[in-house]
Amino acid sequence: MTNEGATSTRTTPVFFVAGGTGISAETLGNLMLQQFPSVAFERRKFPFVTTVERAREVRGVFDAACTDSVTPLVFSSVSDDEVRQELQQTRCAFIDLFGSHLDLIERVLSVNATHGGAPLHGLGDTRRYDARMKAIEYAMEHDDGASLRHLESADLILVAPSRCGKTPTSMYLALQHGLKVANYPLVEEDFDTGGLPRPIRGLVDRCFGLLSTPARLSQVRGERRPGSKYASMGQCSYELRRAEALYRAHRIPSINSASMSVEEMAAVIMQSSNLSGLL
Amino acid sequence: MTNEGATSTRTTPVFFVAGGTGISAETLGNLMLQQFPSVAFERRKFPFVTTVERAREVRGVFDAACTDSVTPLVFSSVSDDEVRQELQQTRCAFIDLFGSHLDLIERVLSVNATHGGAPLHGLGDTRRYDARMKAIEYAMEHDDGASLRHLESADLILVAPSRCGKTPTSMYLALQHGLKVANYPLVEEDFDTGGLPRPIRGLVDRCFGLLSTPARLSQVRGERRPGSKYASMGQCSYELRRAEALYRAHRIPSINSASMSVEEMAAVIMQSSNLSGLL
Repeated sequence: MTNEGATSTRTTPVFFVAGGTGISAETLGNLMLQQFPSVAFERRKFPFVTTVERAREVRGVFDAACTDSVTPLVFSSVSDDEVRQELQQTRCAFIDLFGSHLDLIERVLSVNATHGGAPLHGLGDTRRYDARMKAIEYAMEHDDGASLRHLESADLILVAPSRCGKTPTSMYLALQHGLKVANYPLVEEDFDTGGLPRPIRGLVDRCFGLLSTPARLSQVRGERRPGSKYASMGQCSYELRRAEALYRAHRIPSINSASMSVEEMAAVIMQSSNLSGLL
Repeated sequence: MTNEGATSTRTTPVFFVAGGTGISAETLGNLMLQQFPSVAFERRKFPFVTTVERAREVRGVFDAACTDSVTPLVFSSVSDDEVRQELQQTRCAFIDLFGSHLDLIERVLSVNATHGGAPLHGLGDTRRYDARMKAIEYAMEHDDGASLRHLESADLILVAPSRCGKTPTSMYLALQHGLKVANYPLVEEDFDTGGLPRPIRGLVDRCFGLLSTPARLSQVRGERRPGSKYASMGQCSYELRRAEALYRAHRIPSINSASMSVEEMAAVIMQSSNLSGLL
């Protein structure tokens, strides 16, 4: 095999290293890598690097990936000074997501950082954590209209025809933001009355509607029940039209899920419904 | 009210600003703030800041929060140069999570960043996104032994007595890493035979066990069924002991969920089971 010499055929190793789960390093690192769509990356994560010994091992892996032609990237969210100092000696490009920012924050606050302490994604504040776990439980129990009890204790009720993204969005809002999200599936009978479906009557202030495009909805439904009326363009188009009319009639805010990710939907819904959740 | 002059009684406003959902800014920002446990912060997020006009509005909010005694913190993951230039003019402390790192990466890769492009938490790569959505669906269908069909197509099967954290951990692994996770609840009958429960026989290579402490398990169960045998210390202690013996007998790796968050469990499980998931 000859080396074609084109950067695009080369794969650049990327390492994420952290004292905790590595979620921060991964998230922000990926955000940066996305700015280089022409480059192929091979990612590997090293979570829970909390000792200098472990840092030395990990640095060995980093350095072994360095070649004359390729400099791997290391994204680090390690906060411990000694561990960081060890990692920084790598021959890879070291992107310290933590380092200098902390100095700035220390100056602004006139308070010293603890340089360690509880990891963000540890249990931390147990009450806050329990709230998230309870929210997941609530979302599971109230998925797809499974239970219509205690809907009034929901922070948010997602309303939509089947397969418009209610479930993943509910789970995301519960897991990430500790919001108690119920969801209510609109079915044909709901469209006949013209009014709001009984279970969500009186709760319209916390309802949020999801829509999709007929093509996308038909595709998603077709994967579940190929060739069915349920998945037909005609049926999908009808349900979406009626759902949209219902949202409009009752001033339920809505978004089209066809071109949005759950993360985007969650951010838009929270902004629009003035829900702060757990930040 | 007199100002006591103690920094700890003052609340420092913190703003997260992003061109996308703001998850990266929030995650890494909070990781840094956690280094200052004595300081009270008041957080606010501004997602989807993609135009200079919007940036100007948002900067107005930042600056309005500046006082003689308090300098708010702004964590920015904005990648667009013009938007960033507008935001940087704030009188708050501006923590640019993106800025200089991108220059370094550009030098290392000898490739220019696009300085914009698809947001990380947009739909992006649809195939990758669909895989995550399918994983959530799979996790929902296979929660708590609800369906024992297609267990062989699971990437991972979480095994544990009731209320040890199977459900949130499954959801997290599906949502965040696109892993197809089933979970299997161990009940008393499972302990009687000594062998592996029938549905997971032959699948032991992808099983992972969760444990808890009797006290924590009893507390969590007590919230659901106060005063029940199910929630009693004796019952919890018994089930945990038997579960642990079962894991040991069948060489199923396990962790204790009592002192770990779902994020930590997910990271440990993936590391231990050699699952890379979607990074």
